[in-house]
Amino acid sequence: MRTQIPDTVSFDRENNRLLLIDQTRLPNETRILALRTIEEMEEAIRSLRVRGAPAIGVAAAIGLAVLAGEMGGVDDALLREYALRLKKTRPTAVNLAWAIDRMLSVGHTKEMLAETALAIWREDIETCRRIGGHGSALLRDGDSILTHCNAGRLAAVRYGTALAPVYVAAEQGKHVHVFAGETRPLLQGARLTAYELAEAGIPVTLLCDNMAAGLMQSGRVSAVFIGADRVAANGDTANKTGSLGLSVLARAFGLPFYVCAPASTFDRSCPTGAQIPIERRGAEELTTQWYQNRMAPSGAAVYNPAFDVVPAENITAFITEDGVSPPRKSAI
Amino acid sequence: MRTQIPDTVSFDRENNRLLLIDQTRLPNETRILALRTIEEMEEAIRSLRVRGAPAIGVAAAIGLAVLAGEMGGVDDALLREYALRLKKTRPTAVNLAWAIDRMLSVGHTKEMLAETALAIWREDIETCRRIGGHGSALLRDGDSILTHCNAGRLAAVRYGTALAPVYVAAEQGKHVHVFAGETRPLLQGARLTAYELAEAGIPVTLLCDNMAAGLMQSGRVSAVFIGADRVAANGDTANKTGSLGLSVLARAFGLPFYVCAPASTFDRSCPTGAQIPIERRGAEELTTQWYQNRMAPSGAAVYNPAFDVVPAENITAFITEDGVSPPRKSAI
Repeated sequence: MRTQIPDTVSFDRENNRLLLIDQTRLPNETRILALRTIEEMEEAIRSLRVRGAPAIGVAAAIGLAVLAGEMGGVDDALLREYALRLKKTRPTAVNLAWAIDRMLSVGHTKEMLAETALAIWREDIETCRRIGGHGSALLRDGDSILTHCNAGRLAAVRYGTALAPVYVAAEQGKHVHVFAGETRPLLQGARLTAYELAEAGIPVTLLCDNMAAGLMQSGRVSAVFIGADRVAANGDTANKTGSLGLSVLARAFGLPFYVCAPASTFDRSCPTGAQIPIERRGAEELTTQWYQNRMAPSGAAVYNPAFDVVPAENITAFITEDGVSPPRKSAI
Repeated sequence: MRTQIPDTVSFDRENNRLLLIDQTRLPNETRILALRTIEEMEEAIRSLRVRGAPAIGVAAAIGLAVLAGEMGGVDDALLREYALRLKKTRPTAVNLAWAIDRMLSVGHTKEMLAETALAIWREDIETCRRIGGHGSALLRDGDSILTHCNAGRLAAVRYGTALAPVYVAAEQGKHVHVFAGETRPLLQGARLTAYELAEAGIPVTLLCDNMAAGLMQSGRVSAVFIGADRVAANGDTANKTGSLGLSVLARAFGLPFYVCAPASTFDRSCPTGAQIPIERRGAEELTTQWYQNRMAPSGAAVYNPAFDVVPAENITAFITEDGVSPPRKSAI
């Protein structure tokens, strides 16, 4: 995988710091943050300095290990308070809660917390590599896939989820082109997906989200690959706002629609998509973010859900570390 | 119609000027441009200072009258050259060519050209008012419609096309709420639709284009109303990029999809949508427009068609000055 980008999330054990690429500064600046306090970690996750379901899980695990490392002896009550605070930073991605619960389930010595955080970090790399292997088998030389938001290496430690098949295909010598929806309001597709693919030497074409239908109609898309923030027991999948629309379009235009996610994204305790909490974000993301002046008048209300839910029947298959499988009809 | 916004396009006969609201400065500043030269007019249309299929038709008609007024005697060859230059400014909307051809078909005295331009201007207001009357009959008190781009008063002289039913319904005392897709890349929904509705006291909620599917899934949309840049003989309709996707979603979620347009938008010489020329615009609209730094890396290609084509079978009905009618199946 040819790329100069450092790991999205890592653990500096020598200095006991959580290291993150500050993704709010991409693609203009690659700045590494070194975090030590709970306030810094909460802010980094809420402000999307680190984002992507797998990445925020790994970041929270390393964060807890760092926080424990800063204590004289590990204070169990304080550790649980920190865990709760980190869990609350973002509600939709289940990987965050999964990683924190796994950290809390181990014996609370600094050493065990650090080792568990490192295990979660290593497993993320291996898991994403395996997703890439299974997914690349679905890609032919010359294919063009469409993706949404960023479910690439910047959404995990390396490789990513939805883009892992593309990276592995490239390693295998297949030429795969990626269409990246820019992903309003925060432009993760433009700022992050286009950036990491260009850095890796993979051809990428950017489009506005509303151009996906025309692109599909033109016959230039082979398949849609997205990540996931939470998969309910029946296969309904929460992912970045806009995923539902792409799934309806893919169906209408007869294209396969793949959801790439590690097992930690599957929430068996959540029966259907209707029970997945959907984060609402601030109006300013639509009205004032980029303009020096306003992008919209003050008299307008704003609808800004960060995620939507793709019904299981719109999903051709899930691609996990264990393989490729369609949603289980029996579970619905 | 309660609003302080001046007419989008008008003819200052005393000073022989084409007057336009500079829409690139909205919603932050309402600046009126007074144009006299062909270069100013070409630039205003190309740069979308005036945009919207009916409005650019009216602007070109008044523009030709102004250009003729500047001549000593009307120079037919020069007038035809100006007409050709104005026609070339934007390829997709047929109203531009329609208005120019109508101007050229009249006797070429300054007076007749001025009278014809004024007639086109007056008819636009009356036509849009009638579209509003027919469309408002489809709206019930409490409805929420979804629209895309700006097909409101800022896309015509007054009233507009897709928003005319909302304005007329408001005059009739019905409460209709509008969801406005922001319409990337140029944000006509955020900057123009939200602005003109807020100015008129009509409740409007802004969303990113990729949120339309989730909004429809939530059951809060009664119908979709859009404008049109060109309707082919078989009913296929070119409109702002993103319209095709909305039409597919409306079908999937069982919502009516209405296209509002004057008769001048129907191009009988164009058999199907495949023959409609689709304008491609520059990459910088996606990559660098708002950020001081880049919004996307320089290594990414860009796909930026300004329009897409809604197939006739996705359209519930056309709303024109003559009434409401489904696409004619016989013509397909």
